[in-house]
Amino acid sequence: MLNEIKTRRSVRKYRDGQIPAEKLESLLRAAMQAPSARNCQPWEFVVITQRALLNRIPEFHPYSKMVPNAGAAILVCGNTRLQSETGYIVQDCSAAVQNLLLEAVRQNLGAVWLGVYPREERMKGMIELFDLPDHIIPVALISIGVPAEVPKPEDRFRTEKIHFDCW
Amino acid sequence: MLNEIKTRRSVRKYRDGQIPAEKLESLLRAAMQAPSARNCQPWEFVVITQRALLNRIPEFHPYSKMVPNAGAAILVCGNTRLQSETGYIVQDCSAAVQNLLLEAVRQNLGAVWLGVYPREERMKGMIELFDLPDHIIPVALISIGVPAEVPKPEDRFRTEKIHFDCW
Repeated sequence: MLNEIKTRRSVRKYRDGQIPAEKLESLLRAAMQAPSARNCQPWEFVVITQRALLNRIPEFHPYSKMVPNAGAAILVCGNTRLQSETGYIVQDCSAAVQNLLLEAVRQNLGAVWLGVYPREERMKGMIELFDLPDHIIPVALISIGVPAEVPKPEDRFRTEKIHFDCW
Repeated sequence: MLNEIKTRRSVRKYRDGQIPAEKLESLLRAAMQAPSARNCQPWEFVVITQRALLNRIPEFHPYSKMVPNAGAAILVCGNTRLQSETGYIVQDCSAAVQNLLLEAVRQNLGAVWLGVYPREERMKGMIELFDLPDHIIPVALISIGVPAEVPKPEDRFRTEKIHFDCW
Protein backbone atom coordinates (compact mmCIF):
# COMPACT_ATOMS: atom_id res chain seq x y z
CA MET A 1 0.00 0.00 0.00
CA LEU A 2 1.10 3.55 -0.60
CA ASN A 3 3.05 4.53 2.50
CA GLU A 4 1.29 7.89 2.82
CA ILE A 5 -2.10 6.15 2.82
CA LYS A 6 -0.92 3.56 5.33
CA THR A 7 0.62 5.95 7.84
CA ARG A 8 -1.49 9.11 7.61
CA ARG A 9 -3.16 10.14 10.87
CA SER A 10 -4.78 13.34 12.05
CA VAL A 11 -2.18 15.62 13.66
CA ARG A 12 -3.49 18.23 16.10
CA LYS A 13 -0.30 19.33 17.88
CA TYR A 14 2.20 21.55 16.11
CA ARG A 15 5.54 23.19 16.71
CA ASP A 16 5.88 26.93 16.27
CA GLY A 17 6.83 28.03 12.84
CA GLN A 18 5.52 29.03 9.47
CA ILE A 19 4.86 26.62 6.65
CA PRO A 20 7.13 27.45 3.69
CA ALA A 21 5.17 28.83 0.74
CA GLU A 22 6.45 26.09 -1.56
CA LYS A 23 5.09 23.41 0.77
CA LEU A 24 1.69 25.07 0.84
CA GLU A 25 1.79 25.20 -2.94
CA SER A 26 2.56 21.47 -3.07
CA LEU A 27 -0.53 20.79 -0.96
CA LEU A 28 -2.68 22.93 -3.24
CA ARG A 29 -1.25 21.33 -6.37
CA ALA A 30 -2.05 17.88 -4.96
CA ALA A 31 -5.57 18.95 -4.06
CA MET A 32 -6.25 20.28 -7.55
CA GLN A 33 -5.13 17.01 -9.16
CA ALA A 34 -8.22 15.28 -7.73
CA PRO A 35 -10.90 13.84 -9.99
CA SER A 36 -14.22 15.65 -10.16
CA ALA A 37 -17.61 15.02 -11.71
CA ARG A 38 -17.34 15.87 -15.42
CA ASN A 39 -13.89 17.28 -14.54
CA CYS A 40 -15.53 20.55 -13.43
CA GLN A 41 -12.87 21.12 -10.74
CA PRO A 42 -15.39 23.06 -8.63
CA TRP A 43 -12.97 23.71 -5.75
CA GLU A 44 -11.59 26.98 -4.38
CA PHE A 45 -9.04 27.38 -1.57
CA VAL A 46 -8.66 30.06 1.08
CA VAL A 47 -5.13 29.84 2.47
CA ILE A 48 -5.10 31.29 5.97
CA THR A 49 -1.83 32.29 7.58
CA GLN A 50 -2.76 35.49 9.44
CA ARG A 51 -2.70 34.70 13.15
CA ALA A 52 -5.63 37.03 13.87
CA LEU A 53 -7.82 35.04 11.48
CA LEU A 54 -6.68 31.62 12.73
CA ASN A 55 -7.41 32.76 16.28
CA ARG A 56 -11.02 33.58 15.48
CA ILE A 57 -12.04 30.21 14.05
CA PRO A 58 -12.67 28.50 17.43
CA GLU A 59 -15.34 31.17 18.10
CA PHE A 60 -17.69 29.29 15.78
CA HIS A 61 -16.05 25.90 15.15
CA PRO A 62 -16.17 23.71 18.27
CA TYR A 63 -13.42 21.25 17.25
CA SER A 64 -10.84 23.74 16.03
CA LYS A 65 -8.91 24.57 19.18
CA MET A 66 -5.66 23.51 17.49
CA VAL A 67 -6.06 26.05 14.69
CA PRO A 68 -4.62 29.06 16.57
CA ASN A 69 -1.43 26.99 17.01
CA ALA A 70 -1.32 25.86 13.38
CA GLY A 71 1.17 27.24 10.88
CA ALA A 72 -1.65 27.64 8.40
CA ALA A 73 -5.11 26.44 7.55
CA ILE A 74 -6.74 25.85 4.19
CA LEU A 75 -10.48 26.29 3.76
CA VAL A 76 -11.64 24.08 0.91
CA CYS A 77 -14.75 25.50 -0.73
CA GLY A 78 -17.07 24.54 -3.56
CA ASN A 79 -18.02 26.91 -6.37
CA THR A 80 -21.68 26.44 -7.34
CA ARG A 81 -21.08 28.28 -10.62
CA LEU A 82 -18.74 25.47 -11.70
CA GLN A 83 -20.92 22.61 -10.40
CA SER A 84 -24.59 23.15 -9.57
CA GLU A 85 -25.11 19.81 -7.77
CA THR A 86 -24.08 20.18 -4.11
CA GLY A 87 -23.81 16.41 -3.74
CA TYR A 88 -21.07 16.37 -6.35
CA ILE A 89 -19.35 19.48 -4.96
CA VAL A 90 -19.00 17.73 -1.61
CA GLN A 91 -17.53 14.60 -3.22
CA ASP A 92 -15.13 16.54 -5.44
CA CYS A 93 -13.91 18.74 -2.59
CA SER A 94 -13.45 15.68 -0.37
CA ALA A 95 -11.28 13.99 -2.98
CA ALA A 96 -9.22 17.20 -3.13
CA VAL A 97 -8.92 17.24 0.67
CA GLN A 98 -7.73 13.64 0.75
CA ASN A 99 -5.03 14.37 -1.84
CA LEU A 100 -3.99 17.38 0.23
CA LEU A 101 -3.75 15.30 3.42
CA LEU A 102 -1.63 12.63 1.74
CA GLU A 103 0.68 15.24 0.26
CA ALA A 104 1.03 16.75 3.74
CA VAL A 105 2.42 13.40 4.94
CA ARG A 106 4.89 13.46 2.06
CA GLN A 107 5.92 17.01 2.99
CA ASN A 108 6.47 16.00 6.64
CA LEU A 109 3.64 18.22 7.75
CA GLY A 110 0.88 17.36 10.21
CA ALA A 111 -2.71 18.03 9.26
CA VAL A 112 -6.25 17.39 10.36
CA TRP A 113 -9.55 17.58 8.44
CA LEU A 114 -12.19 19.62 10.28
CA GLY A 115 -15.77 19.24 9.09
CA VAL A 116 -17.58 22.41 8.06
CA TYR A 117 -20.37 21.45 5.61
CA PRO A 118 -23.24 20.77 6.38
CA ARG A 119 -23.05 22.39 9.86
CA GLU A 120 -24.90 25.70 9.52
CA GLU A 121 -23.10 27.56 12.30
CA ARG A 122 -19.64 26.62 11.08
CA MET A 123 -20.51 27.49 7.47
CA LYS A 124 -21.93 30.86 8.52
CA GLY A 125 -18.80 31.59 10.59
CA MET A 126 -16.53 30.84 7.63
CA ILE A 127 -18.68 32.84 5.20
CA GLU A 128 -18.54 35.89 7.46
CA LEU A 129 -14.89 35.64 8.45
CA PHE A 130 -13.62 35.21 4.89
CA ASP A 131 -16.29 37.25 3.14
CA LEU A 132 -17.29 34.38 0.88
CA PRO A 133 -19.69 35.31 -1.93
CA ASP A 134 -23.09 33.61 -2.28
CA HIS A 135 -21.92 31.06 -4.84
CA ILE A 136 -19.19 29.65 -2.58
CA ILE A 137 -19.85 26.81 -0.09
CA PRO A 138 -17.25 26.23 2.65
CA VAL A 139 -16.85 22.43 2.84
CA ALA A 140 -13.86 21.62 5.06
CA LEU A 141 -11.05 23.29 6.96
CA ILE A 142 -7.60 21.71 7.03
CA SER A 143 -5.35 22.68 9.93
CA ILE A 144 -1.66 22.35 9.04
CA GLY A 145 1.56 22.59 11.01
CA VAL A 146 4.99 21.23 11.73
CA PRO A 147 4.04 18.12 13.70
CA ALA A 148 4.73 18.00 17.46
CA GLU A 149 3.22 14.51 17.68
CA VAL A 150 3.48 11.43 15.48
CA PRO A 151 0.38 9.29 16.07
CA LYS A 152 0.98 5.59 15.39
CA PRO A 153 -0.42 4.22 12.13
CA GLU A 154 -3.76 2.48 12.68
CA ASP A 155 -4.92 -0.59 10.74
CA ARG A 156 -8.56 0.08 9.89
CA PHE A 157 -9.12 -2.94 7.64
CA ARG A 158 -12.39 -4.68 8.56
CA THR A 159 -13.42 -7.71 6.52
CA GLU A 160 -17.04 -7.36 7.70
CA LYS A 161 -17.28 -4.21 5.56
CA ILE A 162 -16.67 -6.20 2.37
CA HIS A 163 -19.62 -7.78 0.55
CA PHE A 164 -19.10 -9.96 -2.51
CA ASP A 165 -21.50 -9.40 -5.43
CA CYS A 166 -24.46 -8.87 -3.10
CA TRP A 167 -25.21 -7.40 0.30
CA MET B 1 4.22 15.68 -5.32
CA LEU B 2 3.23 12.07 -4.74
CA ASN B 3 3.59 10.38 -8.11
CA GLU B 4 0.24 8.60 -7.83
CA ILE B 5 -1.50 11.94 -7.21
CA LYS B 6 0.33 13.60 -10.08
CA THR B 7 -0.28 10.92 -12.70
CA ARG B 8 -3.71 9.47 -11.80
CA ARG B 9 -6.31 9.78 -14.55
CA SER B 10 -9.65 8.11 -15.14
CA VAL B 11 -9.19 4.89 -17.12
CA ARG B 12 -12.22 3.61 -19.02
CA LYS B 13 -10.66 1.04 -21.39
CA TYR B 14 -9.51 -2.32 -20.05
CA ARG B 15 -7.89 -5.51 -21.27
CA ASP B 16 -9.63 -8.81 -20.65
CA GLY B 17 -8.74 -10.48 -17.43
CA GLN B 18 -9.62 -10.78 -13.79
CA ILE B 19 -8.19 -8.62 -11.07
CA PRO B 20 -6.19 -10.76 -8.63
CA ALA B 21 -7.89 -11.01 -5.24
CA GLU B 22 -4.84 -9.62 -3.45
CA LYS B 23 -4.92 -6.48 -5.61
CA LEU B 24 -8.60 -5.96 -4.84
CA GLU B 25 -7.79 -6.36 -1.15
CA SER B 26 -5.05 -3.73 -1.45
CA LEU B 27 -7.60 -1.30 -2.87
CA LEU B 28 -10.03 -2.01 -0.04
CA ARG B 29 -7.31 -1.69 2.58
CA ALA B 30 -6.32 1.70 1.15
CA ALA B 31 -9.95 2.84 1.10
CA MET B 32 -10.48 1.89 4.75
CA GLN B 33 -7.41 3.86 5.85
CA ALA B 34 -9.22 7.10 5.01
CA PRO B 35 -10.08 9.63 7.69
CA SER B 36 -13.72 9.98 8.69
CA ALA B 37 -15.74 12.29 10.89
CA ARG B 38 -15.20 11.17 14.51
CA ASN B 39 -13.41 8.16 13.00
CA CYS B 40 -16.80 6.44 12.50
CA GLN B 41 -15.57 4.67 9.33
CA PRO B 42 -19.12 4.61 7.96
CA TRP B 43 -18.16 2.93 4.68
CA GLU B 44 -19.17 -0.46 3.25
CA PHE B 45 -17.97 -2.03 -0.01
CA VAL B 46 -19.74 -4.28 -2.49
CA VAL B 47 -17.08 -5.97 -4.63
CA ILE B 48 -18.63 -6.96 -7.95
CA THR B 49 -16.91 -9.51 -10.15
CA GLN B 50 -19.84 -11.51 -11.56
CA ARG B 51 -20.15 -10.65 -15.23
CA ALA B 52 -23.95 -10.89 -15.14
CA LEU B 53 -24.07 -8.17 -12.47
CA LEU B 54 -21.52 -5.90 -14.17
CA ASN B 55 -23.52 -6.20 -17.40
CA ARG B 56 -26.69 -4.92 -15.77
CA ILE B 57 -25.32 -1.66 -14.37
CA PRO B 58 -25.61 0.34 -17.65
CA GLU B 59 -29.37 -0.33 -17.55
CA PHE B 60 -29.71 2.37 -14.90
CA HIS B 61 -26.36 4.22 -14.87
CA PRO B 62 -25.92 6.31 -18.03
CA TYR B 63 -22.12 6.73 -17.80
CA SER B 64 -21.17 3.15 -17.00
CA LYS B 65 -20.77 1.60 -20.42
CA MET B 66 -17.20 0.56 -19.57
CA VAL B 67 -18.34 -1.51 -16.57
CA PRO B 68 -19.27 -4.67 -18.51
CA ASN B 69 -15.66 -4.71 -19.78
CA ALA B 70 -14.14 -4.09 -16.34
CA GLY B 71 -12.39 -6.78 -14.35
CA ALA B 72 -14.35 -5.71 -11.29
CA ALA B 73 -16.26 -2.84 -9.79
CA ILE B 74 -16.51 -1.67 -6.21
CA LEU B 75 -19.66 0.02 -4.96
CA VAL B 76 -18.74 2.32 -2.08
CA CYS B 77 -21.67 2.78 0.29
CA GLY B 78 -22.39 4.67 3.48
CA ASN B 79 -23.86 3.05 6.57
CA THR B 80 -26.32 5.40 8.28
CA ARG B 81 -26.16 3.33 11.47
CA LEU B 82 -22.49 4.29 11.83
CA GLN B 83 -22.92 7.95 10.85
CA SER B 84 -26.33 9.61 10.86
CA GLU B 85 -25.28 12.78 9.00
CA THR B 86 -25.46 12.13 5.24
CA GLY B 87 -23.22 15.14 4.56
CA TYR B 88 -20.43 13.46 6.51
CA ILE B 89 -21.08 10.03 5.00
CA VAL B 90 -20.56 11.50 1.55
CA GLN B 91 -17.30 13.17 2.59
CA ASP B 92 -15.96 10.08 4.36
CA CYS B 93 -16.82 7.76 1.47
CA SER B 94 -15.23 10.20 -1.00
CA ALA B 95 -11.97 10.19 0.96
CA ALA B 96 -12.09 6.39 0.87
CA VAL B 97 -12.69 6.44 -2.88
CA GLN B 98 -9.75 8.77 -3.46
CA ASN B 99 -7.43 6.48 -1.48
CA LEU B 100 -8.73 3.54 -3.52
CA LEU B 101 -8.06 5.33 -6.81
CA LEU B 102 -4.51 6.25 -5.81
CA GLU B 103 -3.80 2.70 -4.70
CA ALA B 104 -5.11 1.50 -8.07
CA VAL B 105 -2.39 3.56 -9.74
CA ARG B 106 0.17 1.95 -7.48
CA GLN B 107 -1.16 -1.51 -8.36
CA ASN B 108 -0.95 -0.74 -12.11
CA LEU B 109 -4.71 -0.90 -12.44
CA GLY B 110 -6.97 1.50 -14.29
CA ALA B 111 -10.01 2.89 -12.55
CA VAL B 112 -12.74 5.48 -12.89
CA TRP B 113 -15.07 7.03 -10.31
CA LEU B 114 -18.72 6.94 -11.38
CA GLY B 115 -21.11 9.18 -9.49
CA VAL B 116 -24.12 7.50 -7.87
CA TYR B 117 -25.27 9.68 -4.94
CA PRO B 118 -27.38 11.88 -5.12
CA ARG B 119 -28.87 10.68 -8.45
CA GLU B 120 -32.14 8.94 -7.48
CA GLU B 121 -32.33 6.59 -10.46
CA ARG B 122 -28.76 5.35 -10.07
CA MET B 123 -29.18 4.88 -6.32
CA LYS B 124 -32.41 2.95 -6.82
CA GLY B 125 -30.77 0.74 -9.45
CA MET B 126 -27.88 -0.10 -7.10
CA ILE B 127 -30.20 -0.72 -4.14
CA GLU B 128 -32.27 -3.16 -6.17
CA LEU B 129 -29.42 -4.94 -7.95
CA PHE B 130 -27.40 -5.52 -4.79
CA ASP B 131 -30.31 -5.83 -2.37
CA LEU B 132 -29.01 -3.06 -0.14
CA PRO B 133 -30.85 -2.67 3.18
CA ASP B 134 -32.54 0.60 4.14
CA HIS B 135 -29.63 1.89 6.21
CA ILE B 136 -27.14 1.69 3.34
CA ILE B 137 -26.63 4.57 0.86
CA PRO B 138 -24.82 3.79 -2.41
CA VAL B 139 -22.40 6.71 -2.94
CA ALA B 140 -20.04 5.87 -5.80
CA LEU B 141 -19.13 3.04 -8.16
CA ILE B 142 -15.50 2.43 -9.07
CA SER B 143 -14.87 0.57 -12.32
CA ILE B 144 -11.52 -1.28 -12.28
CA GLY B 145 -9.52 -3.15 -14.88
CA VAL B 146 -6.16 -3.89 -16.40
CA PRO B 147 -5.61 -0.66 -18.33
CA ALA B 148 -5.81 -0.70 -22.14
CA GLU B 149 -5.10 3.04 -22.27
CA VAL B 150 -2.71 5.30 -20.39
CA PRO B 151 -4.12 8.84 -20.43
CA LYS B 152 -1.42 11.50 -20.14
CA PRO B 153 -1.08 13.23 -16.78
CA GLU B 154 -2.91 16.55 -16.70
CA ASP B 155 -1.71 19.60 -14.76
CA ARG B 156 -4.82 21.04 -13.10
CA PHE B 157 -3.09 23.70 -11.00
CA ARG B 158 -4.93 27.02 -11.30
CA THR B 159 -3.63 29.98 -9.29
CA GLU B 160 -6.98 31.76 -9.65
CA LYS B 161 -8.47 29.17 -7.29
CA ILE B 162 -6.18 30.28 -4.45
CA HIS B 163 -7.28 33.10 -2.15
CA PHE B 164 -4.98 34.39 0.56
CA ASP B 165 -6.57 35.09 3.97
CA CYS B 166 -9.76 36.45 2.38
CA TRP B 167 -11.91 35.88 -0.67
